[in-house]
Amino acid sequence: MDANRQAHGAYALTVSYDGAPFSGFARQPDRDTVQGRLEAALATALRREVVTVGAGRTDAGVHALGQVVSYDSDENEPEPAVLLRSLNALVGEGIVVTGIRRAAPGFSARFDAEAREYRYRLAPGPVPPLFLGRVAWWTRRTLNLSAMRTAASALVGEHDFRSFCVAESAGGQITFRRVEVVEIVPEEHLGEHCVTVRIVGNAFLHSMVRIITGSLVEVGVGRRDPGWLGEALAACDRAAAGPTAPAHGLTLWHVAYPDECWL
Amino acid sequence: MDANRQAHGAYALTVSYDGAPFSGFARQPDRDTVQGRLEAALATALRREVVTVGAGRTDAGVHALGQVVSYDSDENEPEPAVLLRSLNALVGEGIVVTGIRRAAPGFSARFDAEAREYRYRLAPGPVPPLFLGRVAWWTRRTLNLSAMRTAASALVGEHDFRSFCVAESAGGQITFRRVEVVEIVPEEHLGEHCVTVRIVGNAFLHSMVRIITGSLVEVGVGRRDPGWLGEALAACDRAAAGPTAPAHGLTLWHVAYPDECWL
Repeated sequence: MDANRQAHGAYALTVSYDGAPFSGFARQPDRDTVQGRLEAALATALRREVVTVGAGRTDAGVHALGQVVSYDSDENEPEPAVLLRSLNALVGEGIVVTGIRRAAPGFSARFDAEAREYRYRLAPGPVPPLFLGRVAWWTRRTLNLSAMRTAASALVGEHDFRSFCVAESAGGQITFRRVEVVEIVPEEHLGEHCVTVRIVGNAFLHSMVRIITGSLVEVGVGRRDPGWLGEALAACDRAAAGPTAPAHGLTLWHVAYPDECWL
Repeated sequence: MDANRQAHGAYALTVSYDGAPFSGFARQPDRDTVQGRLEAALATALRREVVTVGAGRTDAGVHALGQVVSYDSDENEPEPAVLLRSLNALVGEGIVVTGIRRAAPGFSARFDAEAREYRYRLAPGPVPPLFLGRVAWWTRRTLNLSAMRTAASALVGEHDFRSFCVAESAGGQITFRRVEVVEIVPEEHLGEHCVTVRIVGNAFLHSMVRIITGSLVEVGVGRRDPGWLGEALAACDRAAAGPTAPAHGLTLWHVAYPDECWL
């Protein structure tokens, strides 16, 4: 049956979600998860069991704008526009399927991903964010963006990011990753100011973006010098880096694939 | 006592709130209102009873980014930065005081306002908004912005806006208002697209911005011609205009005062 499905190709859903109500992306028995909800909606819409693969296994509380979720297609699938409407009617509050693309047979949203972009929003200053309160971490203190940019430059390139990974999950794992971009960008959304940490890389370790952001904030508020971040990286020890920034500031923004993945 | 307070001048708070949890701005017995919460927080912080005046009496569900709320000051008021921190600690979820300014004796946030700006966010297209879901009205259909702009131009100037006012509240009232600007602006917030109706005027009738927006959407989706909006205005009859757009898309954005109000 799998061989049969592969012959028919695959589909990739682009999915946005608010992380707050979910126990993370990955399916878990008796928990409300994004993957669990999507698979239930697909099962109803397609009248068969559907197993999905997500590009990023976001933790509880982490949001997504451009999560990509793939599944193998069958004969006689409904029109994508029709399926899009059905899925959004079925999937419930907090998740929106924004697009459906046909992909080549055997496509995996996880293993075919070339690059992932995460964005972490910080709300500095004495006044808490209101409209951005669900999607930004209020740092209370102001941030020195130029110090943060100097610190961030040490992370770009291929490195062992063991210092920026949940310690228990690093054991035995290959902890080398390639970071392409770390940008610190002042932005305005819904009339409120924030500072967005934009990180692009080939793949990320568990909590890597949140530990990098927590460390950049240490520099931004002046508790650490900009040079400290490179030293923390070189130490290859979780204890050398800063605290893990809270989940609700983080959004899986975009996942990129080679052109040949798409039909 | 009032004369004594006036001699000491007044303060103007700038206030943001999420309209969803509140029974509107205006204080009501046994209801959770923005004004009720602010007055309770001020009473605790200043250890006296405080009566406030708001620039706009927003309805239940309507948000504010730049609501202005005034009160007469007393002798020995705390430092504004200290009071700002106290009020934000006291006022509770859903309201943020973003600024405090000293105003001239007798200042009223309502009667001294020269201009008010409201913004209404529309989310067109087949896919519902996710991060903008709390602050934008999903129209489902796409919107013809150029038709909406043509229609909107009929509203600019001083007119009798009786057609764009809750019928029961118009009786006996003077329904002339001056609208300075109606703009239809495509925007992006939090990675999602929306269309913002930006309206500036000297003052607004009950539900005026929501009825104007509901009428503009009739034109935008093609149910009415652009010329219809001017005819609806001329009719001076609520039944001639379109439906009232839902509260959650609307934000009281900014209130302007003459310079001489500030000390």
